[in-house]
Amino acid sequence: MKIDINCDMGESYGAWKMGDDAAVMPYITSANIACGFHGGDPATIRTTVKLAVEHGVAVGAHPSLPDLQGFGRRAMNISPQDMYDLVVYQAGAVEAFARAAGVRLHHVKCHGALYNMAANDEALSDAMARAVKDLGSGVLLYALSNSGMMRTAQKQGVRVAGEVFADRGYADDGTLAPRGRPGAMIEDANLAAARALEMVEKRYVTSLSGKPIPVSPDTLCVHGDQPGAVSFAKAIRKLFSERGVAVAAP
Amino acid sequence: MKIDINCDMGESYGAWKMGDDAAVMPYITSANIACGFHGGDPATIRTTVKLAVEHGVAVGAHPSLPDLQGFGRRAMNISPQDMYDLVVYQAGAVEAFARAAGVRLHHVKCHGALYNMAANDEALSDAMARAVKDLGSGVLLYALSNSGMMRTAQKQGVRVAGEVFADRGYADDGTLAPRGRPGAMIEDANLAAARALEMVEKRYVTSLSGKPIPVSPDTLCVHGDQPGAVSFAKAIRKLFSERGVAVAAP
Amino acid sequence: MKIDINCDMGESYGAWKMGDDAAVMPYITSANIACGFHGGDPATIRTTVKLAVEHGVAVGAHPSLPDLQGFGRRAMNISPQDMYDLVVYQAGAVEAFARAAGVRLHHVKCHGALYNMAANDEALSDAMARAVKDLGSGVLLYALSNSGMMRTAQKQGVRVAGEVFADRGYADDGTLAPRGRPGAMIEDANLAAARALEMVEKRYVTSLSGKPIPVSPDTLCVHGDQPGAVSFAKAIRKLFSERGVAVAAP
Amino acid sequence: MKIDINCDMGESYGAWKMGDDAAVMPYITSANIACGFHGGDPATIRTTVKLAVEHGVAVGAHPSLPDLQGFGRRAMNISPQDMYDLVVYQAGAVEAFARAAGVRLHHVKCHGALYNMAANDEALSDAMARAVKDLGSGVLLYALSNSGMMRTAQKQGVRVAGEVFADRGYADDGTLAPRGRPGAMIEDANLAAARALEMVEKRYVTSLSGKPIPVSPDTLCVHGDQPGAVSFAKAIRKLFSERGVAVAAP
Repeated sequence: MKIDINCDMGESYGAWKMGDDAAVMPYITSANIACGFHGGDPATIRTTVKLAVEHGVAVGAHPSLPDLQGFGRRAMNISPQDMYDLVVYQAGAVEAFARAAGVRLHHVKCHGALYNMAANDEALSDAMARAVKDLGSGVLLYALSNSGMMRTAQKQGVRVAGEVFADRGYADDGTLAPRGRPGAMIEDANLAAARALEMVEKRYVTSLSGKPIPVSPDTLCVHGDQPGAVSFAKAIRKLFSERGVAVAAP
Repeated sequence: MKIDINCDMGESYGAWKMGDDAAVMPYITSANIACGFHGGDPATIRTTVKLAVEHGVAVGAHPSLPDLQGFGRRAMNISPQDMYDLVVYQAGAVEAFARAAGVRLHHVKCHGALYNMAANDEALSDAMARAVKDLGSGVLLYALSNSGMMRTAQKQGVRVAGEVFADRGYADDGTLAPRGRPGAMIEDANLAAARALEMVEKRYVTSLSGKPIPVSPDTLCVHGDQPGAVSFAKAIRKLFSERGVAVAAP
Repeated sequence: MKIDINCDMGESYGAWKMGDDAAVMPYITSANIACGFHGGDPATIRTTVKLAVEHGVAVGAHPSLPDLQGFGRRAMNISPQDMYDLVVYQAGAVEAFARAAGVRLHHVKCHGALYNMAANDEALSDAMARAVKDLGSGVLLYALSNSGMMRTAQKQGVRVAGEVFADRGYADDGTLAPRGRPGAMIEDANLAAARALEMVEKRYVTSLSGKPIPVSPDTLCVHGDQPGAVSFAKAIRKLFSERGVAVAAP
Repeated sequence: MKIDINCDMGESYGAWKMGDDAAVMPYITSANIACGFHGGDPATIRTTVKLAVEHGVAVGAHPSLPDLQGFGRRAMNISPQDMYDLVVYQAGAVEAFARAAGVRLHHVKCHGALYNMAANDEALSDAMARAVKDLGSGVLLYALSNSGMMRTAQKQGVRVAGEVFADRGYADDGTLAPRGRPGAMIEDANLAAARALEMVEKRYVTSLSGKPIPVSPDTLCVHGDQPGAVSFAKAIRKLFSERGVAVAAP
């Protein structure tokens, strides 16, 4: 049994700090680095890439809708062509810093509303998959496990990793329950770790209504912008270690 | 005798159009494509790269200060590290679209105030050269002919092309006379063409005060945002053709 | 019979020009001035206010979603509180330039997606009405004639002007047919003028499917960003003059 | 003896927090509220105005260069007209929220590089003074005590308050020593309080080189974005109270 642990990173912006990247980096295996559209800026990308490289963590891009003030969480009526252009532009910017640091761009994981919009919309997920394909053959797409986005990417021949969430509740259709719905945010580190293990071992997760949802857990997301990010990551790594789950970037 | 003809391209933004890229593209050999910071946006980069590739024109990035409203023309007190980060970020974004279109990023030419600031400041020109170096070995830097920026780039082992301007007046120190100074903008296409030829054949240009300024004319800039861009480019191509000056990207 | 003729103005941005405000201003009675979020910038607001004042045209604010690249036309999932804040901020900025020019802010008309989103959503229209109320007692709201937004504003005690469109096709529910639908854009100036007159005289408009839609034509919109803006405005003014329809800001 | 205590407020942006406004507000008498160009956003302006009103603190605008990423600290080559437009636009936006909360805009204090640029440049300070004048007769300008900006404002008939800094070192010419220079930032609360008292009682401050600099201490700045903001403000209030210095907005 093997899984990747990814975390959104580099979401500080200018004079404003967000997350504790230096504390989280030792516990993860791949970093989704904000590209400047919902958070991050050129300097933050550079320093975050460097931090990831120092820890042997895979460097990924974390593109977003162009909504710095709303932190990329407000859905926006963009066209599939907009989606393609947003992903290529932002991933290209991160890739240049990766190459300057001597590594390659490993993956793309879209952020917030962009991630959710693509999961439910064929034209948008198709555009996202084409964008990742056009970035070059080696780049993976992280997509919600068993979502339409995952299937679209596979159809297009894009390498894709199914993503699962230890600290979020699932709806019965396999999507993440919206923030704000009771149970949507799991705040207990041990509970999150147990859920992560269940997903890896049994390949399903229990939805908020108690239904088992099948999952393809290639990569597990830990949220870096939450207070408990480090303790979550530690608890998960500890439990995985005890139960013989290997941890590595795909 | 041989020279490149470059032009700033892709400076439209969202609903706003600037320049007539489709009309100018047939007459140039390399395109400096705006990266979204002073003009351009992801969609415009994509369509401009495509247009360049269709005409066999070399694809370059045209990074700028982050000043959309001021069109990148207002000098700003940035650090050398800011300069490095701005160039890597913006060039990376254009490069991704270039690769998606099946070509490589050919060169970087900085825009407006960023170009001028680096020409006169060793720390800034050093940072710009390092940025271009870190983009990868093949990328050229277009730098004001015989400027400090050109020498710095050469010292760093960055491939550099000396740039000359047919439609701008020169000060005695070899820099461009500021827009607004009488004679700074040359509006007659034939005069511009004659100046271009003089630079290529004699390797000097006459300053506003009548002094001969030595130049290294590897690439000649034609400004795309001016009304007469097409007629300028045509006049220059015609005169070069008559006088046996070959035209190609470096 | 009396009506206002309004036009979106000041949508140029930085180095980019849009519309021919100077040519249109003589034919209108109120100006909706872009506030910098979809177009316009502080300098453009100032010069547009000045132009309006010189022509005795009422000065209004034209707030938008924060989407310069998409020209405020991409719907976005904002909260009612976001709506309130966007309107107060942008209208306040225009009002300061109005006061500096010796006039008062006359009205607020929202732009693009913000206008359409509020027309169909009670919480958003309520927030927009509260924002206009909080700007001060004299400020009018321009709202789609007979829309939910108009009724909400009236309920809140906000002075409201019903807006009709001479150059746009109507759906059967009284909303504007989406751009792109056949018949959505009326490009013949005389046809637009005849429709405008019909609305003023008969207080209804014929929908795309031939149905009469009742309207409350307090203010008629002429689009400034379209090539024929001036000829439209002229044709309407000429026909109104011939038929005894007075033209003035409400 | 009487003085105002002002603090920069509302510098959080979107999802990013900065400063502890709620903790500092009880100790100050006027708030300089960020306007969205270097920090702040419409929602933050609204909540900060409300907080100020609840504490009886005077509401001011804190306009900046358009440089969110650089927090308005990077000098930029703007024209006097740019200065005027930046101040009117941003102050107007804050003023609208003030009026919605039932109060008037009390003052304008420019931020960071904009403040420093105007202090040393007659054309820029003249433009800033005209902008404040055009906002309406009641609005004060906070200007560096004994600076050119203060004199220019007085010449123009703008009401002006001389500002002094308790937590910054002064150069011999009466300007603030640049951040980074040894002694530029005073980090001891009691030392800052003692300096504040000296300025109020003796109307001079001791420069970094030991020279007495005359000051006109109408308003004293406490920096809200520094860790010790609350303890500074408390220490100053305590010392002022002990020594009979009254504290109120001008």
